[in-house]
Amino acid sequence: MWNTIDGKLTREWTFKDFSEAFAFMTRVALLAEKSDHHPEWSNVYNKLTIQLWSHDKQAITDRDHAMAKAIDALAS
Amino acid sequence: MWNTIDGKLTREWTFKDFSEAFAFMTRVALLAEKSDHHPEWSNVYNKLTIQLWSHDKQAITDRDHAMAKAIDALAS
Amino acid sequence: MWNTIDGKLTREWTFKDFSEAFAFMTRVALLAEKSDHHPEWSNVYNKLTIQLWSHDKQAITDRDHAMAKAIDALAS
Amino acid sequence: MWNTIDGKLTREWTFKDFSEAFAFMTRVALLAEKSDHHPEWSNVYNKLTIQLWSHDKQAITDRDHAMAKAIDALAS
Repeated sequence: MWNTIDGKLTREWTFKDFSEAFAFMTRVALLAEKSDHHPEWSNVYNKLTIQLWSHDKQAITDRDHAMAKAIDALAS
Repeated sequence: MWNTIDGKLTREWTFKDFSEAFAFMTRVALLAEKSDHHPEWSNVYNKLTIQLWSHDKQAITDRDHAMAKAIDALAS
Repeated sequence: MWNTIDGKLTREWTFKDFSEAFAFMTRVALLAEKSDHHPEWSNVYNKLTIQLWSHDKQAITDRDHAMAKAIDALAS
Repeated sequence: MWNTIDGKLTREWTFKDFSEAFAFMTRVALLAEKSDHHPEWSNVYNKLTIQLWSHDKQAITDRDHAMAKAIDALAS
């Protein structure tokens, strides 16, 4: 599901519509703020791409893998 | 599910946690803004109460029943 | 600004419209989730009421006063 | 402010922090859903890029210019 693209842990989702996509983004926003670890993400209508990467280490770290797992838990 | 309380169409939800509750609120917010018909609602942690009522008619109207149905569709 | 009503630290806001009110609620949601301290709040259109209270202490505590200050900082 | 990049009306914003950025995104989401015209957008922490383009016309249209103006009004 998560692939390494441009050195970042990357996953794409397709939702039913914008409402469902943005509600999921809101949950990821709450998680990101709580974890103090914010994704790079882009959305158009029902499509969402999230990229995780630790800016301070210039690498994918354990924090990114933990965040990926937590995001997946939101989606299930 | 929806009951008439204080002359308003009322329903309560219990979610798993605040994140799930607030994501649902975000979907209702998008729907309300699109419909130009805004609920009275209150939340604490995983509990949400929504009340629908048409302020201009001082009554529960077809708009409220339509909104109730649309909110239920979000939750299913 | 904040008053004690029903044993809870309470404040009301009036925004320009629903969009402005809900954007503010989103900021409070991010803060609440980060602080693991969630308000009782209610909204209708451009009106928002927030009540702070520590459920575990059955009282208004330092956490509530800190949260009230942090919420005020968002609004300024 | 808005420039044409890759055939899309594009603007970038820098906010104080993630909370401020995501609250603005929430306002744009409400506007987009109401207008049934959704942006392409990407965010990382306090940075936001919005791209407007009419998929059905494969071009920048009056709807995009109207949306750009409405988004600017939210930010002011």
